[in-house]
Amino acid sequence: MRAVVYKEPHQVAVEQVPDPRIEAPTDVIVRVTSTAICGSDLHMYEGRTAAEPGTVFGHENMGIVVEVGDGVTSLVEGDRVSMPFNVACGFCKNCLAGNTGFCLTVNPGFAGGAYGYVSMGPYTGGQAEYLRVPYADFNCLKLPPGEEFENDFAMLADIFPTGYHATEMAGVRPGDTVTVMGAGPVGLMAAYSALIRGAAKVFVVDRVPNRLRLAEQIGAIPIDYTQGDPASQIRDMNNGEGTDRGIDAVGYQATVAEGEEQPAVVLNTLIDAVRPTGSLGVVGLYVTRDPGAPSEEAKHGNLLLAMGKLFEKGLRMGTGQANVKRYNRHLRDLIIAGRARPSFVVSKELSLEEAPEAYAKFDAREEGYSKVVLKPGA
Amino acid sequence: MRAVVYKEPHQVAVEQVPDPRIEAPTDVIVRVTSTAICGSDLHMYEGRTAAEPGTVFGHENMGIVVEVGDGVTSLVEGDRVSMPFNVACGFCKNCLAGNTGFCLTVNPGFAGGAYGYVSMGPYTGGQAEYLRVPYADFNCLKLPPGEEFENDFAMLADIFPTGYHATEMAGVRPGDTVTVMGAGPVGLMAAYSALIRGAAKVFVVDRVPNRLRLAEQIGAIPIDYTQGDPASQIRDMNNGEGTDRGIDAVGYQATVAEGEEQPAVVLNTLIDAVRPTGSLGVVGLYVTRDPGAPSEEAKHGNLLLAMGKLFEKGLRMGTGQANVKRYNRHLRDLIIAGRARPSFVVSKELSLEEAPEAYAKFDAREEGYSKVVLKPGA
Amino acid sequence: MRAVVYKEPHQVAVEQVPDPRIEAPTDVIVRVTSTAICGSDLHMYEGRTAAEPGTVFGHENMGIVVEVGDGVTSLVEGDRVSMPFNVACGFCKNCLAGNTGFCLTVNPGFAGGAYGYVSMGPYTGGQAEYLRVPYADFNCLKLPPGEEFENDFAMLADIFPTGYHATEMAGVRPGDTVTVMGAGPVGLMAAYSALIRGAAKVFVVDRVPNRLRLAEQIGAIPIDYTQGDPASQIRDMNNGEGTDRGIDAVGYQATVAEGEEQPAVVLNTLIDAVRPTGSLGVVGLYVTRDPGAPSEEAKHGNLLLAMGKLFEKGLRMGTGQANVKRYNRHLRDLIIAGRARPSFVVSKELSLEEAPEAYAKFDAREEGYSKVVLKPGA
Amino acid sequence: MRAVVYKEPHQVAVEQVPDPRIEAPTDVIVRVTSTAICGSDLHMYEGRTAAEPGTVFGHENMGIVVEVGDGVTSLVEGDRVSMPFNVACGFCKNCLAGNTGFCLTVNPGFAGGAYGYVSMGPYTGGQAEYLRVPYADFNCLKLPPGEEFENDFAMLADIFPTGYHATEMAGVRPGDTVTVMGAGPVGLMAAYSALIRGAAKVFVVDRVPNRLRLAEQIGAIPIDYTQGDPASQIRDMNNGEGTDRGIDAVGYQATVAEGEEQPAVVLNTLIDAVRPTGSLGVVGLYVTRDPGAPSEEAKHGNLLLAMGKLFEKGLRMGTGQANVKRYNRHLRDLIIAGRARPSFVVSKELSLEEAPEAYAKFDAREEGYSKVVLKPGA
Repeated sequence: MRAVVYKEPHQVAVEQVPDPRIEAPTDVIVRVTSTAICGSDLHMYEGRTAAEPGTVFGHENMGIVVEVGDGVTSLVEGDRVSMPFNVACGFCKNCLAGNTGFCLTVNPGFAGGAYGYVSMGPYTGGQAEYLRVPYADFNCLKLPPGEEFENDFAMLADIFPTGYHATEMAGVRPGDTVTVMGAGPVGLMAAYSALIRGAAKVFVVDRVPNRLRLAEQIGAIPIDYTQGDPASQIRDMNNGEGTDRGIDAVGYQATVAEGEEQPAVVLNTLIDAVRPTGSLGVVGLYVTRDPGAPSEEAKHGNLLLAMGKLFEKGLRMGTGQANVKRYNRHLRDLIIAGRARPSFVVSKELSLEEAPEAYAKFDAREEGYSKVVLKPGA
Repeated sequence: MRAVVYKEPHQVAVEQVPDPRIEAPTDVIVRVTSTAICGSDLHMYEGRTAAEPGTVFGHENMGIVVEVGDGVTSLVEGDRVSMPFNVACGFCKNCLAGNTGFCLTVNPGFAGGAYGYVSMGPYTGGQAEYLRVPYADFNCLKLPPGEEFENDFAMLADIFPTGYHATEMAGVRPGDTVTVMGAGPVGLMAAYSALIRGAAKVFVVDRVPNRLRLAEQIGAIPIDYTQGDPASQIRDMNNGEGTDRGIDAVGYQATVAEGEEQPAVVLNTLIDAVRPTGSLGVVGLYVTRDPGAPSEEAKHGNLLLAMGKLFEKGLRMGTGQANVKRYNRHLRDLIIAGRARPSFVVSKELSLEEAPEAYAKFDAREEGYSKVVLKPGA
Repeated sequence: MRAVVYKEPHQVAVEQVPDPRIEAPTDVIVRVTSTAICGSDLHMYEGRTAAEPGTVFGHENMGIVVEVGDGVTSLVEGDRVSMPFNVACGFCKNCLAGNTGFCLTVNPGFAGGAYGYVSMGPYTGGQAEYLRVPYADFNCLKLPPGEEFENDFAMLADIFPTGYHATEMAGVRPGDTVTVMGAGPVGLMAAYSALIRGAAKVFVVDRVPNRLRLAEQIGAIPIDYTQGDPASQIRDMNNGEGTDRGIDAVGYQATVAEGEEQPAVVLNTLIDAVRPTGSLGVVGLYVTRDPGAPSEEAKHGNLLLAMGKLFEKGLRMGTGQANVKRYNRHLRDLIIAGRARPSFVVSKELSLEEAPEAYAKFDAREEGYSKVVLKPGA
Repeated sequence: MRAVVYKEPHQVAVEQVPDPRIEAPTDVIVRVTSTAICGSDLHMYEGRTAAEPGTVFGHENMGIVVEVGDGVTSLVEGDRVSMPFNVACGFCKNCLAGNTGFCLTVNPGFAGGAYGYVSMGPYTGGQAEYLRVPYADFNCLKLPPGEEFENDFAMLADIFPTGYHATEMAGVRPGDTVTVMGAGPVGLMAAYSALIRGAAKVFVVDRVPNRLRLAEQIGAIPIDYTQGDPASQIRDMNNGEGTDRGIDAVGYQATVAEGEEQPAVVLNTLIDAVRPTGSLGVVGLYVTRDPGAPSEEAKHGNLLLAMGKLFEKGLRMGTGQANVKRYNRHLRDLIIAGRARPSFVVSKELSLEEAPEAYAKFDAREEGYSKVVLKPGA
């Protein structure tokens, strides 16, 4: 089959690779209909990870079941399904607790697995024609047949649940005020989720005008951090008070207004922007190895956090990648009911063969490439 | 009346000060029967805060109501009462949410007030014969008449609820495994609370043999961190796995095994010792100003936190001083029912006049002075 | 002052009554600007309660503070405020737990007090020019000055929080499906709250076309129970499955399609309409004394419940009047932010003097009188 | 193999039946080492259900894995395992939500399956030498090798989690007071669980002296309901107040002090005995068909519930069979840590061949037969 293969830093190619096949009775094979490129794919693309050449990328996958292992109960050929980016077993203690992003079974020696991602286990990515899905009864979410809502459903594999996870960890409740750092696809999904959950006011902080415009279109309040300290801007628009909740949708590759990279600046801005007794949801990535970090400590993921202020304010903080399986069913139902349209973040649809160009332009932050959905079947 | 007055670093005196009086209709005056010295009093005692000479210390107070404002409903003279160390109004939005440690009313410009503590508002301490209690209906917890359980109840003002708060923030549930950093009075109360909540195994980390012995006596597993990396010791005793929950009962004045002060070492040890998807409760104090800190950043409360590891493990963290009012009623009922005896941490009872000696010996970590209860009436 | 006074069954009059005055230092006096007539006022109006002639009605009150007791901290003359229908102390154990509808202080011998309601304590109603508010710091919710959102805010005293309470007890979460029994003002507020909380589909069951139309206008799905078994209709529109949550906004005065009164029919319909593992929120009133009940058992509030089915399905049920104080702040903030407009249920504004006519027409279910807001100042 | 087979009302026999075999790749076969007789087996034994002759009984099973399907990941031959009485798939929406007692997969057309129980699907019981376990990765809980704690672990299949489930649904928290109706094995497990969770006082209501004695031995307060109204007795011992929580461990086959059967008496006693704002956990069985019921309505599971009182008090109620899988891991860990010894309820160990005698004596409520564990291997 054809697949997007990592060649070397800043280079992917669409190449012929072996077709996936049923390896265990609990597997299915899915023909991929939509597979999105994720900001986290760029970490590998840019060579800032240990990803090996030959890796097939793609963890935001959906498609049609074409082959079913004989230990699978709930799926038949032809089922349209979405797969969480996290591969999970469904029966380890983390999965049982709903923490499917930290499965103890699928990636021995580490808590958590994923498709097409470095260090996340032997699961070939889905930027390809076909995908093997292990523990398929658990990892496949059934979708209504047909092609309706295809791009909305494509957001169910990662960024919609990831944005939602941030609001869940932050404990966003009806009537709350929320600060979201970052208006990339995940930040927008977090803001969108906060509004779905009934937030009163959602401030979204970024510097890119297009992104801020999208935030405003969904009902959030855009804050341009190059126009002044974002926490102060927010307090000025919030009766002089910080927000109840804060969401980090940026992570360690954060820059200050002047452009310098400061890996803890987003966290520390949130500690400032959130009011005492508030809570933070952190889905922006922080890593334990970052060769490109600006300091020796930061290279190991040790960051200067405003811990004194965090404690004085009695803040709470939840962190980590989303447990997609915990949320995707409910989010799917919101899409079907016409109450959520997460595809508003999709900037472009391309064929699989166009992936190399898509990666290059996304990496260059070219407009129109902020959220590309590849269509292997097209 | 007589009261413990701060004179200068390392010196307190018992002196005559004006009697408190009803200042608002919602006040009561309490004759103090027991008032404990707290580790946090030492911060002021040692001159590491901005506390002014003349400050009356004492925030762990209980006693008998002797005068009642005419806006008070639920109290009469003679009622035996315990007062949370946090002064709170009961009607601001933080109090309504149960976050009485962050009251927005009682200490304007700051979230939270307390008796006898620097920067915590104009509330004279209770290491004295009498105490004025504002918003008395809210701030007084009624106790059974008589003298039974006096020292158990004396723990209700601060350290028992503080230890319990740590377990609540960490989300300790029946069957959980827990790491508690610090076997001082608060750490022991945290371990005790975790066991009351049904924890399966509680590891308590300290270096002082007496403290570790007390931990063992209540059913916890003592870990001496001078005998090897505590996280490794715990994993070795826990099937190779970190614990489900972690509690920081030490704070920024933490030392490594070699004796050097490292303000983030306890937090980073917990990040290591707790397993992926676990959660932390931080009641050990972190401050925004620490002139004695070992680095320029630490002087402002900015600490090098293992943020990459924290995120990779998907940990959650709750921080801040305890909201005593949220817990003291239930903890009182456990004492009355004979199911909790927190007075096991009390090392000595002394008269009010003996306070200066008690402070000096506590500050010197002399044995027998780890938890002193002063008896002003005696 | 002028006030709406109960005279005898089916008769109220607007009469001169003594002005309220500060009785305790913690009281304030409020000049009433809006006070709504509630369906529960009709129980008294119709003579189906023990309400004494002379009772001043009115528990859905808002207005302007005109006098302040000297034990009040947070209010000054001129403040615009909303009062929960439940009078509460703020410091008893039920209030501390957020259960302000079951205050143990304000109505000795019973859990819960209210303004202008039989058996709910000595609190004169607010369908009058002025109202005394006890424990004013706790019972007053401050509103923005001016007259904006007046009718939206008027819904904060009872029906918006009551509808919301139903969704809270039922545990409505984003993506859920919900059945709401009853499209009166409370049922509509419940449906509206469910949608604010992110429900995917909300079915509202009633027989009155106007009410069903309103339900549809806010985005709910109307179900006319005279057109067939409502549970079956809902399953037919919900993939053959019951809903995740169910809300009873009707109570014991329920009628079947044929018109006969059956006090448990709404509960039993919900037990049928909700899927296994679902949950119910019951805010429709059930009473312990109902002289007009169709059976001897029902006269004492003992109803034939489908307990076998309830258990087999593993349903959960929360009941009781709303704890308004727990919700009114957040709901106010949604109104201010423009994210909620509960005034859509208001059918008419009238002067205080028009109250007798309003009661008569509301009791006769005349169109346009389903939710009347009286304007004493007008 | 040998198995306990239902022959006719009041008769079981130990007979030769076909050995179970792997039917799906996700199955395992377990050699049963301990299998307990449950009170709910008596419903079938007494002929009060539709159980067919030939049914093999037994849903409280544990043993050793002897054969492993090739779609099973986490188990190998020789593993010692406990199986929840509920058979569950692990991937339907109810299982994902933790409601494994209401699995939508294993018993098509009904929510929930079990071993050896009428209407609960095609799963042969475990009062036999061997047991087929479907979805084995999900349904098997691994135990430490060896024979230690055998009878404690035998309680993990049903009654310990069932008692715990009652406390979870009732929301028992540290410091709470609790009423438990029924001191049979499940009631005792509920009381035991409440104490593990930190309850301050647990009242256990029954009439059988032996059972009440056991309740007292674990730290609960026995209440003999033949000595006076149990709710009044409890209030007299609880400062005149009802308890915070109530647990129904009896169900519909309840009798009043005079001996008459009244299917709702336990529920109505709890509604009386629990204080306003309290909550109930109902694990005692209620059914939709009971031919032996004392009234026509009760025959269909429609019971006269004190709904007016329930609502007036604002009570909450959770019902339904336990989701064992949600709790068994944590309860196992409490056993291993030496913090729980649920085997205190085991009254006798017998061989499989002695089952007929055990059933007869248990049915006759003969002393010593209240909780029999059969040992097929012995």
